[in-house]
This record gives sequence, C-alpha cells and structure tokens, in this order.
Amino acid sequence: MSPRTTPADGGVVLGVDVGGTVVKAALFGPDGTAVATTRRPTGAHRGPEAVVETLLDVVSESQAAAERRGTPVRAVGVASCGIVDERAGVGVFSAAFGWRDVPLRRLVAERAGVPVALGHDVRAGGVAEARLGAGRGHEVFLFVPIGTGVGAAVMIGGRPFGGAHRQAGELGHLVVRPGGEACGCGQLGCVSTVVGGPAVLRHYRELAAIRNGTAGTAGPADAAGVAALAREGDPDAVRVWSEVVDVLAESLAVAVTLFDPSAIVLGGGLAGAVELLFDPLRERLAARLAFQVMPEVRPAELAYEAGCLGAGLLARDLLDPAAGRTAQDP
Amino acid sequence: MSPRTTPADGGVVLGVDVGGTVVKAALFGPDGTAVATTRRPTGAHRGPEAVVETLLDVVSESQAAAERRGTPVRAVGVASCGIVDERAGVGVFSAAFGWRDVPLRRLVAERAGVPVALGHDVRAGGVAEARLGAGRGHEVFLFVPIGTGVGAAVMIGGRPFGGAHRQAGELGHLVVRPGGEACGCGQLGCVSTVVGGPAVLRHYRELAAIRNGTAGTAGPADAAGVAALAREGDPDAVRVWSEVVDVLAESLAVAVTLFDPSAIVLGGGLAGAVELLFDPLRERLAARLAFQVMPEVRPAELAYEAGCLGAGLLARDLLDPAAGRTAQDP
Repeated sequence: MSPRTTPADGGVVLGVDVGGTVVKAALFGPDGTAVATTRRPTGAHRGPEAVVETLLDVVSESQAAAERRGTPVRAVGVASCGIVDERAGVGVFSAAFGWRDVPLRRLVAERAGVPVALGHDVRAGGVAEARLGAGRGHEVFLFVPIGTGVGAAVMIGGRPFGGAHRQAGELGHLVVRPGGEACGCGQLGCVSTVVGGPAVLRHYRELAAIRNGTAGTAGPADAAGVAALAREGDPDAVRVWSEVVDVLAESLAVAVTLFDPSAIVLGGGLAGAVELLFDPLRERLAARLAFQVMPEVRPAELAYEAGCLGAGLLARDLLDPAAGRTAQDP
Repeated sequence: MSPRTTPADGGVVLGVDVGGTVVKAALFGPDGTAVATTRRPTGAHRGPEAVVETLLDVVSESQAAAERRGTPVRAVGVASCGIVDERAGVGVFSAAFGWRDVPLRRLVAERAGVPVALGHDVRAGGVAEARLGAGRGHEVFLFVPIGTGVGAAVMIGGRPFGGAHRQAGELGHLVVRPGGEACGCGQLGCVSTVVGGPAVLRHYRELAAIRNGTAGTAGPADAAGVAALAREGDPDAVRVWSEVVDVLAESLAVAVTLFDPSAIVLGGGLAGAVELLFDPLRERLAARLAFQVMPEVRPAELAYEAGCLGAGLLARDLLDPAAGRTAQDP
C-alpha cells in the first residue's frame, strides 16, 4: 500500500481474513502498516452461523478499537476461504464452514456502516504479494500458499483471475496420483492429498508405524516437525518430503505449461521450510520443462499476513477506486 | 465483425493466416464478409526466408486484387503459428519454419504500406470465435483447435491470454502418458502424441500392422479416414479413437481445474468428426470432474477460417482501436 496523504482516503481501513480455523483482523493506517491486529477461532464446529457471528464481532470490536485510537474505520475488506463471488459479495460455498450463498458483504456492511469489499483469501493474498511482496514486477505470476492444502491465485496484471465460476487456479485439486487417496473434493489422488500439513504428518506417521510395528502417535506434532526430521536425515521424513517436492514439481509443471508465468510465489506453512523446499523444487521443476520458460520460484514475502493485508488493500481500493479493481477480473 | 459504415473504417482489410503448410489470405469488407480468398503452400521446406517471401507475395497480390476491385486494403492482420510476440510484432520461434525472431510486422508493413497487426494463429482464431463464433457470451472460454497437434487459446473477456512469454495454453504439451512417445517439443507422452492427425493415423497403422502381420500402408490415408472406420466399428480404429477421447478428456479436466471456463470450443480437423467426438468427450470429461463446474463443450463455428478471420479482426481493430485490444492481453 503506497503512502496516501490526501484527506479523501487517509483514514484507517480494516482487513479481515476468514480462514478455516482462525479469523484474523488488522487495522491498516494510510501508509499501509498494521496499527493493531487481532485473531479469534472461527468457531466453525458450531456451524456456519457461528462463523458469521465471529466475523461480525471481530469487525465491531476492531471498529471500537479504532474509534478509541481516534481514527475511525473508513472501509472494511473481508477475505474468505471457500468459493467466493467477489462481484456479488457472496460466500458461495465453504466445506470448512458448511455454508452456501452467504451474503457476507451485505452482512458486514450492515454491521459496520462503512463500505465493504469481499475477496477470496488466496486471491487477496495474491493481490498483496503483487503490490507489496514477491510478485512485484511480474505481469503474470502464481501465488501458491501451502497450508492444509494447496491453493493458487493466478495473477494477471496485478489482478486475480477467477475463471467463469470463481474456481480458477485449483492447483491443489489436480489429480497427480490417479486412484490415490480420497480427497475432500470428491476426487482421488489430488495434489492436496500429498502436499499439505495434515497429509505430510499422516504419511510420516504411517511410515513410522510400519517401521516400528506400532501405530505411532509419538514423534512430530505437525508438518514442520516432519520437515525438521527430514533435515536431520530421518529416512521416513526424507521419503515423505521427497514425495511432496515431486508432486509439487509435477503440478507446477502443468501450471507453467498452461499459464506461462514468470514467477511462482510459494507461501504458507510448508514454504517456511525454505532450504528444504526451494532448491530441490527448482531442480525437479526445471527437469520437467522442455520448451517452457522456467519461472522464478521464490518465497512469499508477506508470510501469514498476506490474506489480511490483501483484504486491507481491497478496502483501501474502495476509497480510491482508480488504484485497484483488485476484487475483479481483468 | 459488426457492420461499420463510417468512412473512417469502412475499407477492406486483409487477413493472412500463416499455417504450418499453407498461407491463407482473405479480403474482408466492412461488414466482415470475405470478398476474396487465396491460399498458397508456405514453401517451408525451402527455409524460413521462403516462408517470409510467400507471405509478402500473398500480401502484395491480395493488395493488387483489392485495388482492381476499387477497394484498397486499409490494414493487414497476420496470424502466424509458432511462438508469436504480438506486442513486439515478432515471430519469436517456429519449429515448422525454422525461424527465430523474425520482425514479421515490420516486414509486412514495409511491403504493404498500411498499418499491420501481428497475431498468433490459435489466439487469433480464439478472437474470431469470441466475437463471431461459438465463444460469444462466454467471459472465459478455451478455443482448442485439433490439427497436427492440439493448441489452445485461453480467452478472457474477449481477449487472448498469452502468459508472461507468449506461451500460455500449451494444452497439447501437457504430459499425459509419462514415459510415452517422444514429442517434437522435447517431452515424452504429450497430448499431441496421441491427439492429432499424424498420431491417429500412425497408431491405427501400427495396430493394423500387428493384426495383419504386415507393415500396412493401405487403409485410411488420414485421421478422418480412421474416424470413418471407427464409425463403422473397425476395432483398431475404435481403440485408437477411444484413446484420443480419453486423453482429450484427461487434459481438458486439467484445463477446467485451472482455468474454470464456461465453454470449451473445439475446432480443427478432428473436431469435424462431431458425433464421434463430442458426446463421448462430454461424458468422459464430466466423469472426471468433481467440484468443478462442467463447461459447455461445443464445436467451433468458424471452422478452418478462424485464423484468417481472426487476423482480419486484428487488422480491423487497427482502424478502430476502441473495438478491440485483441492483440494484447487483458
């Protein structure tokens, strides 16, 4: 977010990221820095209404906090996981929340009383990386956050491409192991059944249980723990990690063949294992390409805050429409 | 091309399609109808200079023909196969012609003395289908011509998406049979090693030779002949055709997952076998999709002339820039 000093858009905006398990919010000043942040469990286990309630409470509390600082919130940006229709302002579907066609933009606007923009978490993160992070200077790049599964935002000219039904870029649901593990999406052998926190931990535990002859629950507690073991040379961890890198390389080769990006920006938890991931991935991706131009493969720069920051940018654009059109396709 | 009656752009434009084996050209009147067409072998076997010479000769002769009709050519559009940089006006690479970095737009402009636009044959065909053909009304669709190999133009808002290096949409070079047949692109088992005229004919002849114990050259002379045999129930032809449909379905499922189009428009020679191709393809594509929205799968409407017509549209846009920006990305 570039510094803005005009009275017309110099206020504070609120960016909210509604993720699978946590709602994150941040107040951003006119120069784009976060002046206050908060996070709260979504309460998704209590059903979709609870998630909406959490969202609205976080918005209200953030507004109150801003008032106390003497800088009222001028606009709100909300980035949500699931299928999001930015133009209609609707959360179309979310398996994590069990919701369908929730008019999020209207609900938040009624509560907040200021302009509200709705975005998709991964695409909003892509907007943040495009303007302020690792995508700067790239006309066409992919933002690929790896968390529970694998997402992708296809960024074209600084704007996210959503496809005809807001479902473009579902890199995590390319089938790379036909007949493989069942994925929540209904297919077998998707990228996300191999690459992603729960899959990595589960596969490590399966191998370790075979090796030890027991159903092991000791050992690493998460994918980062498996990565740490791989770094130490633990053979099961190395094997699981190698499969992660292979599947990522295979799926990214497909994405390069179809999108021809000049950069791939990897974010999310697993991308934190930088030295374990990036060099082997570059090598295996390059080995899979022939005529295609090898893109830069680089870490995201905005880490876990990209979604929140992207939501803030969507809000800022409402105050300065010439700057953005970020919520819409080219 | 919509009717235009203003003197400013009412003239005749020339569209030229430089294909692998044939240069096609057509003069288009203000209402978009072709008033004269011509075709000439590229002469590619005599080297890249010969192809450029053929192109320039076709341009000159078409201009002379237009003069004789009393309607001089006001602008020229050239659509070329290979890798084309529309913005720079350069033919970057063509395996068929053996050329690299040929400044086609400048060369044609020097010869023609009128404004010239350069396009990519598949993307220009996509523009024609978007404005005048089967893509009308679709914000996001794929134009997939199947000829010697398989190409694709990704159409977004009426404009072709080229990627960072003008290589987006290389559907024909997705690897679907790892370790399979060598493709001219340097990979093994690409879509184009199964789907495409020469592959279909070769695979049929291989099966027939095994069945007959001889290296057969009798039988069908091209892929359309194999399709005709499949229609009659010839078991080898049925088997080859089934593999074509499978590989098309597999690769289109990937494209749907990443691009989320509302329509797939199939053109080119093989798509002419309409009743043999479309229903089985729709069925097998639908079977591969889970959460993805099944797009319309429909035949191209402009047949073999899409490239030529698309080139004509690029030329027309030079006279009326507000109409198009067709040669550029979103």
